[in-house]
Amino acid sequence: MATMKALRFHGNQDVRLDNIPIPPLRPGWVKIKNGWAGVCGSDLHEYLVGPKNAPTKPHILTGETLPTVMGHEFSGRVVELGEGVTEAYGGAKMEVGKKCAIFPVLGDRTCVWCQRGAQGVCPNWGFLGYSGYGGGFAEYICVDARDVHIVPESMRLDVAALVEPIAVGWHAVKLGEPKPEDSVLVLGAGPIGIAVILSLRAHGIENIAVSELSPLRAEQARGAGARHVFNPKNDDVPERCREVSPDGWGPQCVFECAGVQPSLDAALASVRGQGVIVNVGIFEKDVTMNPNVLNRRSLEWVGSNIYTRQEFQEVVDAIANGRLKGPERMITARISLEEGVEKGFKALIHEREKHVKILIGVDDDP
Amino acid sequence: MATMKALRFHGNQDVRLDNIPIPPLRPGWVKIKNGWAGVCGSDLHEYLVGPKNAPTKPHILTGETLPTVMGHEFSGRVVELGEGVTEAYGGAKMEVGKKCAIFPVLGDRTCVWCQRGAQGVCPNWGFLGYSGYGGGFAEYICVDARDVHIVPESMRLDVAALVEPIAVGWHAVKLGEPKPEDSVLVLGAGPIGIAVILSLRAHGIENIAVSELSPLRAEQARGAGARHVFNPKNDDVPERCREVSPDGWGPQCVFECAGVQPSLDAALASVRGQGVIVNVGIFEKDVTMNPNVLNRRSLEWVGSNIYTRQEFQEVVDAIANGRLKGPERMITARISLEEGVEKGFKALIHEREKHVKILIGVDDDP
Repeated sequence: MATMKALRFHGNQDVRLDNIPIPPLRPGWVKIKNGWAGVCGSDLHEYLVGPKNAPTKPHILTGETLPTVMGHEFSGRVVELGEGVTEAYGGAKMEVGKKCAIFPVLGDRTCVWCQRGAQGVCPNWGFLGYSGYGGGFAEYICVDARDVHIVPESMRLDVAALVEPIAVGWHAVKLGEPKPEDSVLVLGAGPIGIAVILSLRAHGIENIAVSELSPLRAEQARGAGARHVFNPKNDDVPERCREVSPDGWGPQCVFECAGVQPSLDAALASVRGQGVIVNVGIFEKDVTMNPNVLNRRSLEWVGSNIYTRQEFQEVVDAIANGRLKGPERMITARISLEEGVEKGFKALIHEREKHVKILIGVDDDP
Repeated sequence: MATMKALRFHGNQDVRLDNIPIPPLRPGWVKIKNGWAGVCGSDLHEYLVGPKNAPTKPHILTGETLPTVMGHEFSGRVVELGEGVTEAYGGAKMEVGKKCAIFPVLGDRTCVWCQRGAQGVCPNWGFLGYSGYGGGFAEYICVDARDVHIVPESMRLDVAALVEPIAVGWHAVKLGEPKPEDSVLVLGAGPIGIAVILSLRAHGIENIAVSELSPLRAEQARGAGARHVFNPKNDDVPERCREVSPDGWGPQCVFECAGVQPSLDAALASVRGQGVIVNVGIFEKDVTMNPNVLNRRSLEWVGSNIYTRQEFQEVVDAIANGRLKGPERMITARISLEEGVEKGFKALIHEREKHVKILIGVDDDP
């Protein structure tokens, strides 16, 4: 039986490079030779405090339990078509040799949310890279052809692997609906914050303020297109935001990408009346707040749930046509599958602020 | 000097029936002989734990400090026009003898929010009935003609006094944007909950579930048009809501009108994915929650800030044309100014659940 290398999650702080069978191709599915795959904050979360996403009993959709292959931000090249496959996502022509980015969210495809393309809200949701059916940290994967988003041959596969994390920021921006003339604040310039900044620029928003403690990340935020970068240790962020907004009232839209109480407090204190706070960060702990602040200032607090299928494709298109500029600046390291645990997971844990996105390369041009 | 009777807030648990000068008429203002005025939950709040809204130093707009006249839900009849007055709100013809409901929110009229009709978000906001310029618990008031909403002669003045509290529910419903085929949940059937139910019915929404502990209020909710009334002590409210929603997924829209942690918890557990929670209740205490629930289920949590000028007029119109049915069922007692403290404030504190709205009548048909 043909085997392949794969990084699998076996349990808490236990990710191993295993040799496992190459998965079989099913009718309606395609086999992908993986290109690049990003290490995500939620991968670290799973590594440090999991299993959370990885199933400890058979997953309702995949039937699999851990160990499962990790990696959900990934790209590759189609190498084999399953029975009956002629089309990729959106009716694009499916052919062997096409480059692609994979929509990694699993849903039952029948519920009201799946019907709208919002698999992430499906009550039976799952994720490639956690729930079974394989992932991006492996040489091959077989996936449903409907989840394959074809990218142009001219798009580099490392950039195609960024479609997924950028789509997280893209969805948040679409929820917040800032207008080009609006002021916005992004709290936290980790990978999600950078994805939000890149997506804001692609939507024509220029007056972007960022709050970030780390000087390295502050620099990355500037590079991605932030006009103002504040340090919450030294700056009164709400006050500075008002100063840099043309009419003095502060941001119409705030993107919370840090997931901690002080950041939520800053969001509530910074956003102008009738403004929107988009919650993108993952909160490890509960927060305390008085809901009256939402009433008093007529605020909306919106939870950003990954992205829809349609938005995933919009990001493919925005990168392809140049509307979203400089996605490659998110990449701060490229490593091999063999280096995944030491130079991927552990580097992000111990030198978190040095990195935006570490890509694990399976095959640069498979 | 001509004097009048007025219930004034002097301080914590100190509301007195005073004889004070009838206020002078200014250019652009009109004098109103008050009809009826409702006692609001926020009046009780002010009485019990204030001064909060009543100014202890000169208010930025009125220049007044307490004691100030209370009563912000009120109606009356125009008895005198100030210099230059020809029009009421919206360009309606202003004449002595017209019946009216008063928009009680004060703003600086220049900020971006006042320009949009959302005085409640004005950084310099105030309220008739708290901040000075008088209120509804008095024989007369003088107000800016632009804040006078003329009502038809056929509308009873006790009903016209309900425009303000109903507008609070109307605004919440407009924020939540439920569609006629949607299921909704209203948490708490106090005056705000009842106003929400009446407004929902006026918007064509029929599948209304209510959660309410008090049997008396549950009955009032049914009377106002709730289809299902659950008791959170005995019922698993989220589960029951799913049962009574046609597709089993629960309410698209939840109106939080109780302002307590268990109610917020029930809102978050009941609302369907991609649903909306509208925060209408006033929270006396902070809440604890994990914002991830907003992301995971793609929720919107919106703060409802009173109402806009336009919505205040919409409620006048909806009552006048019969689209909003049965507003008078909110009235559970009619008392005099002299009875205001004992049978108004104290009755609501000690027999809260017996009442929806107690009206203080100054002049039934002035």
